[in-house]
Amino acid sequence: MFITFEGIDGSGKSTQARMLWERLAADGRDVVLTREPGGAPGAEDIRKLLVEGDPGRWSAETEILLFTAARRDHLERTIRPALDRGAVVISDRFADSTRVYQGATRGDLRDTVDALHDLMIRVEPDITLILDTDPDAALARGLARKSGEDRFEDMGARFQHTLRKGFCALAQDHAERCILIDGDRPVQSVAADIARRVEAKL
Amino acid sequence: MFITFEGIDGSGKSTQARMLWERLAADGRDVVLTREPGGAPGAEDIRKLLVEGDPGRWSAETEILLFTAARRDHLERTIRPALDRGAVVISDRFADSTRVYQGATRGDLRDTVDALHDLMIRVEPDITLILDTDPDAALARGLARKSGEDRFEDMGARFQHTLRKGFCALAQDHAERCILIDGDRPVQSVAADIARRVEAKL
Repeated sequence: MFITFEGIDGSGKSTQARMLWERLAADGRDVVLTREPGGAPGAEDIRKLLVEGDPGRWSAETEILLFTAARRDHLERTIRPALDRGAVVISDRFADSTRVYQGATRGDLRDTVDALHDLMIRVEPDITLILDTDPDAALARGLARKSGEDRFEDMGARFQHTLRKGFCALAQDHAERCILIDGDRPVQSVAADIARRVEAKL
Repeated sequence: MFITFEGIDGSGKSTQARMLWERLAADGRDVVLTREPGGAPGAEDIRKLLVEGDPGRWSAETEILLFTAARRDHLERTIRPALDRGAVVISDRFADSTRVYQGATRGDLRDTVDALHDLMIRVEPDITLILDTDPDAALARGLARKSGEDRFEDMGARFQHTLRKGFCALAQDHAERCILIDGDRPVQSVAADIARRVEAKL
């Protein structure tokens, strides 16, 4: 079972991914919590190139190649071995992030993103939980925890609004695996909602 | 005019690329000397991931994605701007290196390499000079200058022999742009041979 969390920065998806991991682990399940970009030693090295530095550091084309390289490494070294031994894998972001972020910045590259995915990745999650939150509040939360990994937050509020629309459209296009979660509720309520929905599928 | 140098490590191609650059610059031409992986600030950061560390650090699939990311950045930031203003560009390695290195290690990925090139790069050189040298002597030269960038040399002598065959096959497959140069001659003789052939095409 491969579960992904998606949403804009500051939407609470990392917190919720960790809470779901804790809950499933407490039930005695073999469960792996991971993230993108990164999630394997090599992929984490590529992550540094992606999340640090100037927003104009890479063109959209170079960026999707780097995301795909990191994803391939993550898939081979972390996700696939865990799924093969029967573990549940929870990833904070996966291929949908590339689809939505590139769709928001360079819609003309959407076919290229899909072609690269079909060529080098191919895997899709079984469940994708999309944390839907108010973009202004999310951006404020993201900026409040300045981490040095702020390349995408630095792209501004209008960008966050476009991303939100992109994630909502994704939820409709892939309704068979995507669940839109209202993230503008207390953390524990969101976690209980997610646990209920995941346990129904396990 | 886009000129590339190809060949195994230690074949003398970097020296010859620099000598050709000096010669054309001395003639008053606008000429740019660059290299792969690297050749632009971002691409040089990706280069570090590729040439340093353990030979098993990346799978072949992740490696070709990283090479393609570095190439795309190099193309956008260095090669294309120089060609657009009418300069001659000389690159120490380009897409042929990926074709030959991957062909030698993972022949089954050759179609993937071509598909990635068609999707993200598309550009081919006008002239490709392939330095053909004895692999054992080339490997000894390469190892003698231990630089910390020895990930490919560390793959050993048999690998260098396979690469040489791959470069010779490439020269035949792309005879319209490839020139095989006998590199087992004094440096100045090789340089004079290359200058003569390039000047005939300029």
